Amino acid sequence: MRLNLIPLGTSAGRPTLSRGASALAVVTEGAWVLCDCGEGAQIAALRAGLSLSRLDAVLITHLHGDHFNGLPGLLGTLGLEGRQRPLVVAGPPGLTALLQHLERAGSLGTGDMEVRVLEQQGNGGEVRIEGSQFLVESRPLAHRVPTYGFRVALPDRAGTLDVARTDAAGVPRGPLLADLKAGRPVTLADGRVVGPEGLVGPRQRGPAMAYALDTVPCPSAVDLGRGVDALVHEATYEDARAALAHERGHSTGVEAARIAAEAEAAGLVLTHFSPSVDGAALADEARAIHPRIIAAQDLAEIPL
Amino acid sequence: MRLNLIPLGTSAGRPTLSRGASALAVVTEGAWVLCDCGEGAQIAALRAGLSLSRLDAVLITHLHGDHFNGLPGLLGTLGLEGRQRPLVVAGPPGLTALLQHLERAGSLGTGDMEVRVLEQQGNGGEVRIEGSQFLVESRPLAHRVPTYGFRVALPDRAGTLDVARTDAAGVPRGPLLADLKAGRPVTLADGRVVGPEGLVGPRQRGPAMAYALDTVPCPSAVDLGRGVDALVHEATYEDARAALAHERGHSTGVEAARIAAEAEAAGLVLTHFSPSVDGAALADEARAIHPRIIAAQDLAEIPL
Repeated sequence: MRLNLIPLGTSAGRPTLSRGASALAVVTEGAWVLCDCGEGAQIAALRAGLSLSRLDAVLITHLHGDHFNGLPGLLGTLGLEGRQRPLVVAGPPGLTALLQHLERAGSLGTGDMEVRVLEQQGNGGEVRIEGSQFLVESRPLAHRVPTYGFRVALPDRAGTLDVARTDAAGVPRGPLLADLKAGRPVTLADGRVVGPEGLVGPRQRGPAMAYALDTVPCPSAVDLGRGVDALVHEATYEDARAALAHERGHSTGVEAARIAAEAEAAGLVLTHFSPSVDGAALADEARAIHPRIIAAQDLAEIPL
Repeated sequence: MRLNLIPLGTSAGRPTLSRGASALAVVTEGAWVLCDCGEGAQIAALRAGLSLSRLDAVLITHLHGDHFNGLPGLLGTLGLEGRQRPLVVAGPPGLTALLQHLERAGSLGTGDMEVRVLEQQGNGGEVRIEGSQFLVESRPLAHRVPTYGFRVALPDRAGTLDVARTDAAGVPRGPLLADLKAGRPVTLADGRVVGPEGLVGPRQRGPAMAYALDTVPCPSAVDLGRGVDALVHEATYEDARAALAHERGHSTGVEAARIAAEAEAAGLVLTHFSPSVDGAALADEARAIHPRIIAAQDLAEIPL
């Protein structure tokens, strides 16, 4: 199982003609989660060919409009579609009350669909999405309002079975091999017990990504990004405007690269560009710090 | 001064790949008002080449998400742009409380911009937009929630001056003619008082449009549409599904045409199409009732 990232909106503050408001799809076979849901995210998802019915969860970093304003419409559309299974929506404190007020005002229209709001608290932690293969964790970031970043991963995979060795050890082909591969010892017909040691390679880490916006450079972003295949980090301004970035609770591309380097993230995806910056130039500037950097573009898929 | 209509979103319930959620720009030279503000309206406005700084007012019919969800983002963008003059937002009861809750949650971001919310009450009435040339009135429609339709017009124009006759009457060319044209009597150098009667033609009615969605067929829509150049009326379903339309608080295209005919509206623009109907076919069906019907398409301008 692989993860693909599809940026659905890469602009900061407001949508432009070329960049939508913040949203990013994390996609695996048959399912996806949405990180942030700026205005227009549901349309961008349709353009990307994503099926709304396969959406497992929405992870909202904070309630600023450019990260939240697409959520009511997305929930309304899922309600109209008659979605049966619950939808998990994780986000900061205040999310429940806001959705309730929208519902009371008649603006939500979720119909019979159950929305399971999981407000993140304190240092964050596991975000349980029942029935989903995605493993999600949250950590608090450092922005002007309560904000949580997320780590999204797929489960570790079993190690590779060395069939020449299992043959040599006398394990017959068939169901016993599946047990061995899963790490369990098996009992052969002659009574011998054979363990997986030496017959099965090490477990393979599932693919993982982290999503850190909006934030000034902070240790939690390093925690989230530790060893991931791709850290998606905000890069609102170029480094010459670092003071402005910090004043507004944001980071520069160079700072995002330092976070990625410290976290030993294999790749860095920059996003959340102020309409006043050139995303590609911002990525060029940051490559002195981290070699594998992509400036996100709307609907340009990034396979991990 | 002319009016142009630019549909920014013509879908019912949810945006699709070809139709955005409800929004329509009513445009004259240097200024415009926005009727409804579904998700994506601000982006559609940019695509249409409309300047957000020239927006005089937003008229929200009701708080269902497909008519409202684009408003928070639009207000946030205007706030980011540092808009100085106030923005009038007219709408149904509950609009103020909803915007206040969004503001408290941090989702609105209007900054220093003043938003003048005018909640319509009872039978509606004049919607005052200070400093704007647009003349706006509201009337309650008949939907599942409190809903107001709007009539948007430009002021009547002065009648045409008959210069041959003013010459013959001895009125000198110059500022006195402007007074006459404005309907005021003038005093000539020789002391004679000359009135506009016979020298100035009748006042010309300013262009006008009406906006009636969402609603079942109702007398208020006829009131709003009386003699307008174009009535924009919802047409969620084809006539074969009239019962479903009524059950959901909507109209069919044929019903909209009956309203337009009764109101003696010069033209009818159908919009708010269920994703399950073909707008063009729906307009064809309605043309038996009213000869001048357009099925609105996103971004296809309609000059009045």
